[in-house]
Amino acid sequence: NLAFVLIAALLVVYGEPLAAGSGIPEIKCYLNGVKVRNVTRLRTLFCKAVGVLFSVSGGLLVGKEGPMIHSGGVIGGGVPQFQSLSIKNFKFNIPYFRSDRDKRDFVSAGAAAGVAAAFGAPIGGVLFSLEEGCSFWNQSLTWKTLFCTMTSTFTLNFFLSGTLDHSWGSFSQSGLLTFGVFENCHLWTLVDLIIFILIGVGGGLFGMVFNAINTRLTIFRLKYLAKTHKIARVLEALLIGFLTTVVAFLTPLWIGQCRAILDENSNSSLQRFLCPPGQYNDMATLFYNDQETAIKQLFHHSGMHAWTLGLFFIFFFLLSCLTYGSSVPSGLFVPCILCGAAYGRFVSSFLIFLYFQKIKTHIYLGTFSLIGAAAFLGGVVRMTISLTVILIECTNEISLSLPIMVTLMVAKWIGDIANHGLYDIHIFLKSVPLLEWEVPSIAKSLTAIDIMNTRLKFVYPHTRVRSIVNLLRTTAHNSFPVVTMKLPEIESKSKLASANLRYRLVVSLPQIFYSCFAVVNQEIISYEKFNEDYPRFTDIHEMNFDDLNLNQIMVSGLDVTPYMHPCPYVVHPDSPVPQVFNLFRTMGLRHLPVINSRGEVLGLITRHNLTH
Amino acid sequence: NLAFVLIAALLVVYGEPLAAGSGIPEIKCYLNGVKVRNVTRLRTLFCKAVGVLFSVSGGLLVGKEGPMIHSGGVIGGGVPQFQSLSIKNFKFNIPYFRSDRDKRDFVSAGAAAGVAAAFGAPIGGVLFSLEEGCSFWNQSLTWKTLFCTMTSTFTLNFFLSGTLDHSWGSFSQSGLLTFGVFENCHLWTLVDLIIFILIGVGGGLFGMVFNAINTRLTIFRLKYLAKTHKIARVLEALLIGFLTTVVAFLTPLWIGQCRAILDENSNSSLQRFLCPPGQYNDMATLFYNDQETAIKQLFHHSGMHAWTLGLFFIFFFLLSCLTYGSSVPSGLFVPCILCGAAYGRFVSSFLIFLYFQKIKTHIYLGTFSLIGAAAFLGGVVRMTISLTVILIECTNEISLSLPIMVTLMVAKWIGDIANHGLYDIHIFLKSVPLLEWEVPSIAKSLTAIDIMNTRLKFVYPHTRVRSIVNLLRTTAHNSFPVVTMKLPEIESKSKLASANLRYRLVVSLPQIFYSCFAVVNQEIISYEKFNEDYPRFTDIHEMNFDDLNLNQIMVSGLDVTPYMHPCPYVVHPDSPVPQVFNLFRTMGLRHLPVINSRGEVLGLITRHNLTH
Repeated sequence: NLAFVLIAALLVVYGEPLAAGSGIPEIKCYLNGVKVRNVTRLRTLFCKAVGVLFSVSGGLLVGKEGPMIHSGGVIGGGVPQFQSLSIKNFKFNIPYFRSDRDKRDFVSAGAAAGVAAAFGAPIGGVLFSLEEGCSFWNQSLTWKTLFCTMTSTFTLNFFLSGTLDHSWGSFSQSGLLTFGVFENCHLWTLVDLIIFILIGVGGGLFGMVFNAINTRLTIFRLKYLAKTHKIARVLEALLIGFLTTVVAFLTPLWIGQCRAILDENSNSSLQRFLCPPGQYNDMATLFYNDQETAIKQLFHHSGMHAWTLGLFFIFFFLLSCLTYGSSVPSGLFVPCILCGAAYGRFVSSFLIFLYFQKIKTHIYLGTFSLIGAAAFLGGVVRMTISLTVILIECTNEISLSLPIMVTLMVAKWIGDIANHGLYDIHIFLKSVPLLEWEVPSIAKSLTAIDIMNTRLKFVYPHTRVRSIVNLLRTTAHNSFPVVTMKLPEIESKSKLASANLRYRLVVSLPQIFYSCFAVVNQEIISYEKFNEDYPRFTDIHEMNFDDLNLNQIMVSGLDVTPYMHPCPYVVHPDSPVPQVFNLFRTMGLRHLPVINSRGEVLGLITRHNLTH
Repeated sequence: NLAFVLIAALLVVYGEPLAAGSGIPEIKCYLNGVKVRNVTRLRTLFCKAVGVLFSVSGGLLVGKEGPMIHSGGVIGGGVPQFQSLSIKNFKFNIPYFRSDRDKRDFVSAGAAAGVAAAFGAPIGGVLFSLEEGCSFWNQSLTWKTLFCTMTSTFTLNFFLSGTLDHSWGSFSQSGLLTFGVFENCHLWTLVDLIIFILIGVGGGLFGMVFNAINTRLTIFRLKYLAKTHKIARVLEALLIGFLTTVVAFLTPLWIGQCRAILDENSNSSLQRFLCPPGQYNDMATLFYNDQETAIKQLFHHSGMHAWTLGLFFIFFFLLSCLTYGSSVPSGLFVPCILCGAAYGRFVSSFLIFLYFQKIKTHIYLGTFSLIGAAAFLGGVVRMTISLTVILIECTNEISLSLPIMVTLMVAKWIGDIANHGLYDIHIFLKSVPLLEWEVPSIAKSLTAIDIMNTRLKFVYPHTRVRSIVNLLRTTAHNSFPVVTMKLPEIESKSKLASANLRYRLVVSLPQIFYSCFAVVNQEIISYEKFNEDYPRFTDIHEMNFDDLNLNQIMVSGLDVTPYMHPCPYVVHPDSPVPQVFNLFRTMGLRHLPVINSRGEVLGLITRHNLTH
């Protein structure tokens, strides 16, 4: 076990640090319009996919759904480009798919396909990518995404049915995570509904505590572990792996009870451990099976002692809280569902104890653990409509949809009192300027002029290469307004021309150097040439300017007009911040120039201005 | 029957012409940002709700789902305002909910609740309102809409279960339109899938023909019937009602066959008609039950002759095509489902005839008619993801979701070759400037300067009341740029200040008149006062300016600056049309001023400029 965990941790720490965690926060940032380095690289995909294989095999309490969604996003982002920084041979160069927005659409479709494959939930996948990604609901894109998720589900279903049931051509296996068949479950009444709401309240509270503990842990990790040697993070992962193994071995020994096997069908997934033949250890059944089987056990089979369930919940809660955020690829969905199922099962055992078998036990146990799972998952991740649909599609039973919805809603409300969803917490701790759905309330009374960045560096349409190089070296901005100076007027009215994105300038330099050996007066590099090298630009600080006859080039003029965006969105200085915010959010902007009614650039608003 | 139809037609023609049809096109326009007069009036609600009651009772082949969705939208739009033009007594005046955007959100939530109640589909309702309404996916709004639809479903479920099953407190009835329980239906294989695709192709073709015939009919109606006396439209509705009754009487007599009743349970909904006891007439069973019962018959019970099904399909197809668009409130969903179910059932009977009972008949008959219903409905309305979810939620069986999705997708693709969805056709025929999801391809190479309206009427910040009155009387624009003249400069540089929406100007006039009796120098009317009277402004042409000492007021100056929008979204003349389009679409704009880099207003873009 530890060897597997070691491999997973090594892959993450030395391979690609971005492969740690579930990957959903990274995909969320990317789709929001924030540039996260390396998020869609082939190397990340490899580390993530292989890493999660080993971290799940290593017995860690992690899920494979989050990494699967991330992998889907990487594949979606990578395939249409037909080229990669790592594999240079493939270069089909289809310019149609290479813009920033198109790539984002592909990543979102890929993530949706990942959800569809992980949960067998094509509609849930579409909603997931909409909820996390798009701010602009585009009907045809949605339709294409649905087609993508359907294909993903179908392909998986086809091969799963073929390999598992040996009946190629029938589509009987719907997804990797299924909850089994709920029989005759349409039995809930008004009284049940109140209990469901109470379970939702409990799930929300537990989720709140889970997030709070994990926040502390993540802050601790960022403070101490991130600064020390890389080996520390590997050791941490190993320690967690060791702890998990010890707990999984000792709890069945001390707490688990031997119970007689009643149902012959479920024999295979019951663990005998140290019990006499014909009996099984209930704790071992939960810990030694893979998590999907344990979930099915909790949903469909009776015969767990209430104490076993309660203690299993506490141990699992703490261990999975410890695991998430360490340097291994780790999903959050399945551990949360398992944990919540134990909680729901515990509640139902308690209720049966109270009412002494007055309620139909077998059916209620399963339904209650499903509701418990929904409540806990809702309390932790706080997703809304997509989570609801994913759970309903997993359950494969629409009549349970109303209880699931109610529970999720209550859990989210309760949890939102104290903190945010776990993904949002992790995004916040990484200090990514993610734009929320709502304008922060303090910003509502401000106008654009209050938040804009006024210390701007301007670029003139015809400028020297040297000054651009200096500008790029001394500032960290990504965008520069290109302004024209009107000489006849007394005050220097700098009329706005446009905002110039930094990467365009950076790429132009090497092109200039190459072409300058032939012609001193530089060529106009076509827009296509830009896109070809996008997004892999050489960093300005790594560029070598000490070449032979560079001085000549450095003083030569450069016309930046072909590289600038001729008509960006602009705002008036008196515009209220909510209006600016909506423009940013819906258009996925990164920079927004502020111009007054005379056309002068007064400032520039970036995402950081809006979030801080 | 004819009396019922007469009442429905009278209500529509003399009550409120907008209450005709399904109401979904009107809701769609409204949510798109187009102002449709009277669409959310109480009077419309009354005519629609009462009218559909009578048109369904009158035996017309119409559904009640579309009008229900419209009614939901009206209620959603009306309730938060707590006042109405018809009922003046209620005036709570909560200014928070009175902006244009808020009202649109409420209408969309109301429409979603309507869908949820009609189909028992809370998630489908949310997706419907998203697909038809919002262009901006707002997470918290979605969450609120889901809560709204859930409440709607719950309430309906509670009362339905209480009244029908006499078991108050259990939630057993899920919606008004249910398809009954599909038993043991997870039997589809790769071969079935190919048949489903073929059914989808057929459904798409039938839908295409349906839309084409209905388009001709609607054009005919607009050309001849709309111009003649109102009584003509009432007579038309009566004629359709008469025709329906005749067909429904004659076909069972001539074509219907008497068949022995096999299943005692389904006895109650089988119609004996003129058959001997113990037998039933198959055509009469389809025509004389209400449509929901007929759908369940087709889905779950065997014993229809293939000829009966085929002829029923043809008659029903023609009659419902004739009915939709006449002057009665008429939904489209249920007739389409019934028609498609007959088509699917016919195909399956045909297949059974071919393969001679090799396939399991009973289950396949039901599944095939469901697929046929999905195919035909998809071919007619061409909605995408929301229709899929609504049908899945109606079916109450998730394992059928993949076949339904595939069929709908194929039907939509096939149908889209020739024409648009029926709702879009009706919107187009009413020449409403609805913005589609995609930019028209011919406009992609144009820039803002090519499409803008250059013949503008300007308003100066300080102007005379008389000139505003004249301006409003002579033009039909709703928005006027307010410009300032700079005297020192030689050419009249008209710097943009803002676009001024017409209603603001109109309301200012009566206010001025009232206040002018007291003070000649008019007060500044607060923004709240505007909103209070919004959207019920007196029309400028109806205003009486021949009052006593009005001349004095007419020449007095008026400062329009308090009533104008200080910082609207603006675009540069060189902006490509797709960028302008996106801004319109996402922000729900109605007017967009075009200003050049010196801040001069060059023109104004409206929705009509974008669509034509």
